[in-house]
This record gives sequence, structure tokens and C-alpha cells, in this order.
Amino acid sequence: MSLNDEVELLRNIPLFANLEPSKIKLLAFTSERLTFRAGQNLCVQGDMGDAAFIIMEGSADVIVHIDNKDTAVAKVGKHDIVGEIAILCDVPRTATVRASSEVTALRISKDLFFRLIREFPSMAVVIMRELAQRLERTTSQLSRALGRAG
Amino acid sequence: MSLNDEVELLRNIPLFANLEPSKIKLLAFTSERLTFRAGQNLCVQGDMGDAAFIIMEGSADVIVHIDNKDTAVAKVGKHDIVGEIAILCDVPRTATVRASSEVTALRISKDLFFRLIREFPSMAVVIMRELAQRLERTTSQLSRALGRAG
Repeated sequence: MSLNDEVELLRNIPLFANLEPSKIKLLAFTSERLTFRAGQNLCVQGDMGDAAFIIMEGSADVIVHIDNKDTAVAKVGKHDIVGEIAILCDVPRTATVRASSEVTALRISKDLFFRLIREFPSMAVVIMRELAQRLERTTSQLSRALGRAG
Repeated sequence: MSLNDEVELLRNIPLFANLEPSKIKLLAFTSERLTFRAGQNLCVQGDMGDAAFIIMEGSADVIVHIDNKDTAVAKVGKHDIVGEIAILCDVPRTATVRASSEVTALRISKDLFFRLIREFPSMAVVIMRELAQRLERTTSQLSRALGRAG
């Protein structure tokens, strides 16, 4: 794929919508593009994480290992970001992300992630919103689960 | 309290540790300081939120209303930030925050919150880390709750 095509693809990701073209080019050069077959893991619960992933194509299940069984807790798809918690908190991966179809993903290293955030506060706001929305969903799932258990 | 004392207090909050003195002064002028008695609510689940709070002194319970009863899901204390989810996501308050002792809190309006984040990416990183840590804790609580229920 030519650099121009790559830049065009990246520009369509809402997270990068406000970046200047020169920065998008930098991103196209410095980030790595990976392909996963259905059933392959983007990351594995318990591993240390050194990168986040932005899904370009395909979809994946977010799976947590509970009581010796795998439970899918969410689905992620095109333009979603996954794996940023482990690099933000320096904790092991909190879940396994497993491709449910062929997935193309952009691998954003920890260094690049923090560089992008410091240079582009608008990206930080998008990521904060995403984290807050997930926290809100998880909290209401927890409320329902505790309600059932109580 | 004199402006200098106020600036000194704000500078001790980790979230603001890297702000320049002139910006801390702006914050001291533009944010509002509120006192809550034990039992009073800083915010109420279901209400629309137009501000976040930084706790300066005292502690509070984070309470969710499930099946007609109130369940405390977390405790917050000195220098914690609460109430930022509703202003990040434009959703009603996801929980009630109730003072468990006398609480002094800094009220940060939605406008001020976004201004601070855009001007100080380092603050955005601290808030992202905080959200990610809470998401990690909530996800493992949910895992345990689903494990028990299953």
C-alpha cells in the first residue's frame, strides 16, 4: 500500500481526524500494521502490555478468564482502540482480545501513544471519552450483576 | 483564605502538580470551593452533570442504586476526582457521591475542565490513568460478580 493510501486510511479514523497531514504521515511511518486470523489473539489477559491497537478492519471479542472459563464481555470493531489500559496503568492485560474475523490492526507502541497524547490534546479528549463510556457501561453491568447476586 | 494559601493548597493536588503558578492562580479564581456535611450528596445518580469535583478534605462513598437499594461500590478521599464521567460522556450521573465525613471539594465546571485538558496534556494523562485504573478495578469486580453468578 502506498504512503498516500495509508495516510488516507488513518485520516478516516475518528481518533486521528484532527491531526495535521504531516503528523498523520509520521504516524503511518512509526506505527506497525498487523493482520490476525480469526481465532488469533491481539493480546492475552495477564501478559504485560507495551502497545495499544486500533482496529482498521474486522472485529474481535474481549474475553475475561473467570473461574477457569472464558467469558466474552464485549465486542470491538472498526476504528475501536483496545489495549490502552495496560499501557496507561502499567498493569498486566486485563482481558484477552481475540479476532472473531480476520482483523487488520494498527499497533501503537507505548512511547508513540504518550507522544501522540502530549502533542494532541484533542486525541486525549477522545480517549478519555472512550474510557469514561466503557467505565459507565461496566459500572452498570456490575450494578445489574450485583443486583442479581443480592 | 488568602489567594496564596489557596494556590499552595491547589499545588499539592497531584493533578495540578505540573501547572505553572499563573495557571494555578487562574484555577483558584475560576473554580468554586464547596463544603458538604456528612450525609450530604456531592452529586446524585440520574441527575445531569455540569461539573466534576476534586476532594480537598474528607471522604465520600460512591453509591449506586440497584433494585431499590443503595450499594456503596467505592470510597473516595483527599485529592480524588469524582464526577468527571458525566461531563466527559454527556450522560446522567452514573452514581451518587455522598460525604461520609465533612468534605471540602473544588467544583470544576465542564468548561473549565475541557480548557484545562486542552492546555495541559499532562493533566489529561493523569485523568486517563485514573479512568483506566477505575475501569480495570470495575472490570475485575464484574468478573468476580459474574463468576459468582455463573
